[in-house]
Amino acid sequence: MPVQGPSITCSPQQGTTSTDEAFAASAAILGRTAELAAKYVASLAQRPVGKPVSVVQLAAALEEPLPEQGTPPAAAVEEWLSRAEPGIVASAGPRYFGFVIGGTTAAALAGDWLASAIDQNACLWATSPAAVQTELVVMRWLKELFQLPADWVGALTSGTSNAHLIGLAAARQWVGAQLGFDPARDGLSGFEPVPVVCSTATHVSTTKALATLGLGRSTVRQVPAPGGVIDLGALAATLQTIGGPAIVIANAGEVNTGAFDPLDKIADLCQFHPGGAWLHVDGAFGLCARLCDRLAPLVQGVERADSLASDGHKWLNLPYDCGFVFVRNPEALRSAFSADAAYIAPEPDAGWDPTSHMPELSRRFRGLAAWCAIKAYGRIGYRALVERCVGWADEFGRWVQTTRSLELVAPVSLNIVCFRYIRAGLSTVELNALNRAADAALREDGRVFLSSTVWQEKVALRAAFNNWATGPEDLALLKAAVQSVARNLEICND
Amino acid sequence: MPVQGPSITCSPQQGTTSTDEAFAASAAILGRTAELAAKYVASLAQRPVGKPVSVVQLAAALEEPLPEQGTPPAAAVEEWLSRAEPGIVASAGPRYFGFVIGGTTAAALAGDWLASAIDQNACLWATSPAAVQTELVVMRWLKELFQLPADWVGALTSGTSNAHLIGLAAARQWVGAQLGFDPARDGLSGFEPVPVVCSTATHVSTTKALATLGLGRSTVRQVPAPGGVIDLGALAATLQTIGGPAIVIANAGEVNTGAFDPLDKIADLCQFHPGGAWLHVDGAFGLCARLCDRLAPLVQGVERADSLASDGHKWLNLPYDCGFVFVRNPEALRSAFSADAAYIAPEPDAGWDPTSHMPELSRRFRGLAAWCAIKAYGRIGYRALVERCVGWADEFGRWVQTTRSLELVAPVSLNIVCFRYIRAGLSTVELNALNRAADAALREDGRVFLSSTVWQEKVALRAAFNNWATGPEDLALLKAAVQSVARNLEICND
Repeated sequence: MPVQGPSITCSPQQGTTSTDEAFAASAAILGRTAELAAKYVASLAQRPVGKPVSVVQLAAALEEPLPEQGTPPAAAVEEWLSRAEPGIVASAGPRYFGFVIGGTTAAALAGDWLASAIDQNACLWATSPAAVQTELVVMRWLKELFQLPADWVGALTSGTSNAHLIGLAAARQWVGAQLGFDPARDGLSGFEPVPVVCSTATHVSTTKALATLGLGRSTVRQVPAPGGVIDLGALAATLQTIGGPAIVIANAGEVNTGAFDPLDKIADLCQFHPGGAWLHVDGAFGLCARLCDRLAPLVQGVERADSLASDGHKWLNLPYDCGFVFVRNPEALRSAFSADAAYIAPEPDAGWDPTSHMPELSRRFRGLAAWCAIKAYGRIGYRALVERCVGWADEFGRWVQTTRSLELVAPVSLNIVCFRYIRAGLSTVELNALNRAADAALREDGRVFLSSTVWQEKVALRAAFNNWATGPEDLALLKAAVQSVARNLEICND
Repeated sequence: MPVQGPSITCSPQQGTTSTDEAFAASAAILGRTAELAAKYVASLAQRPVGKPVSVVQLAAALEEPLPEQGTPPAAAVEEWLSRAEPGIVASAGPRYFGFVIGGTTAAALAGDWLASAIDQNACLWATSPAAVQTELVVMRWLKELFQLPADWVGALTSGTSNAHLIGLAAARQWVGAQLGFDPARDGLSGFEPVPVVCSTATHVSTTKALATLGLGRSTVRQVPAPGGVIDLGALAATLQTIGGPAIVIANAGEVNTGAFDPLDKIADLCQFHPGGAWLHVDGAFGLCARLCDRLAPLVQGVERADSLASDGHKWLNLPYDCGFVFVRNPEALRSAFSADAAYIAPEPDAGWDPTSHMPELSRRFRGLAAWCAIKAYGRIGYRALVERCVGWADEFGRWVQTTRSLELVAPVSLNIVCFRYIRAGLSTVELNALNRAADAALREDGRVFLSSTVWQEKVALRAAFNNWATGPEDLALLKAAVQSVARNLEICND
């Protein structure tokens, strides 16, 4: 005998409700959640961006054994928000300049909520024609937005890391085909190595993808990247040591500095490599330079890539997580991920099949947030967002240059300002210690959030401008916070 | 000079607004989205589950060039809902029995909305202590819920496919270490093959993971699985042909039938294999059998696995996407995915670091939907959900057995009923054609949604019971729809 009752009960005493009643209760819970969310979003303009919190403190706030009995759903959500509060980072707000993180716009968030509510499985035409067709439209829009070849095939992913995984899996298939085997079918053991060339400034997400794919994170041939830009001569020389086909990875937007590799010239090298070379471009955030006439020359040649990985949750200000990948050669992509089983066999009239273009089967309908955002803001809105952010970086970079206690660690070439505190007479080691202290002091201050790095052996701070809502008052606060740390650490007393 | 104005404008004419005004506008858009979502959720009890829609029809509804100008955000969301309507599948509702898809509960949906609104990047302690600590709590709760060893380490993933990828990457590291190399660091080329053994009933998501990892989807040694259950003798014989270490993949819940491999006995074989064997278990939905005393013996031995992949968006009724993986050997997991770069270096007091346990860096805060759902329903609520679903499968299976025009294609062992229409005097080929016609007729009817498969050369229909809201009226409708198709196809005239 089945246990009766359609709904999950909060406690066994509550008994059964009808399906209608259960779904009506859902509506009330969603309304309450919308209120909580709106209150949080409204707080973004004023709240501290992120105060340091210790593991012990947050564990104490959140640890408890598995609940046996339930709690009313709206109360559970409210309870989490209040208990987790000290550990929530206002990275979606206008004063977060850490890493390269964009906050979600209202349209994207609305689309993402709808995606959760209709809860489609975006893996097959059969599981959601609406999700699959919308993804196709979004991928076409992205190609139009970034002026990429219309016939490239692609996938929406959980971020650039998985986009790298997919693009480089397609590259691996192509190299394997040249060498006479099928890596996805046959595996890599016992076959010739797949040569990969990139610069020392390649992002760690690429390295992770190479590790996952069995190509090895340490077998890649790294050439120097002075100032973050690949040494073209060194790349040419390395390619000359490779007789057969190769994979070349290029940067459109180095993470510390925003620097770009010369894509057009790299594409030339790939084109004329005797064994052929597959060009994979990391455009995590740098691809967005393509949106502005003034910046587009930085990405010139990206349309010649064989695969291109980028991110939606960064500069396009889509909610986490969302990335995308495009591949020129559809057969290389599909042979990497094709899946064949009777229980997921397509119907005769079925449309596009996402699962044959990525490692995942079941997956979230990420395309809806992207559709709503592109529909709401259009090419003009996104161009303005990118221009505004680059403008803030430009202004902040010039301020750093004219401020006695600061110096740029790298030229500002896009939306990232990499800088450090300086004081006359200090050694490199002492300056590094000073900047670590400044980093900690800025975190403690909490008005803005920067991340830190080590660039060419200098400990430095990074301000990345990616948020749609960052305004003049936020830039003023950034300068004020940087200055007050200089005063408190007695770097300067201006 | 920066382009002024903090918000993305819908049209360039709208000019600038202050940050406060921009976030206030967000609140209004969220409120409207909550209304739209609540209306959709309320429709789940009554609306058709999924009517066939052609690619041409849906493309016509959704295709348009990249918008240059924007549209007010709330209008964009509403427009998508109305244009995409024919392609939305009510897979979150109580009459969807296709594949193995669960609909989101109210608490999980509320948590997922909050995750989108606070938009944390759940990749590092530094990007969101709240997200990272909550994921740790959720993983501990999952271990308690499923009675798994407390010291297993794990990750929340986008589904079982990525959970397989992670578990099998750890397995690959372990085998590599036995054979004297580090697969993630060194790659696989030029080293000994990594032997993988599984049954012919292994799910295609596992095969995809093997392809991605460079182990090869076709190099795996498959042993027979009569009735969906691995032939233990054949497994033992295959292991005997492997001198060194091996990876063994076992099923907890075969997708066509819900059948279980004998995990305890497989764990014995692995334990006594001379070269050692890593046991990876696919518990995509079958792991939930562990929640009920009556069903727990089916999964006996899962606690002896070396890695375990499962799903949150299936039977736990979390929104897409959510899966999880656990690994016994923390070093094997971390060596597969460790990432080291100055721009993501952990602070001295930093907590757990998700990115070192998975291929992704940036990622969605999936843990919040899971936290809210487990908090809201508790062990008791989830146990009741699983028991209810198994009860419906049991009742529907018995009805199939007593209905003249139907037969079970496999015994009902969990929550899946695999059955077909029969008519005396028809050949196997004719019965297959009949069932393909019945499948199409059920889709056209639209009151319920079943998926189809081919099981042991028989075309069959599958009803999977996974939804929290399925009630007696839904089961009655399922029977009525199955019967009316039998009448319309003149299979029977009862």
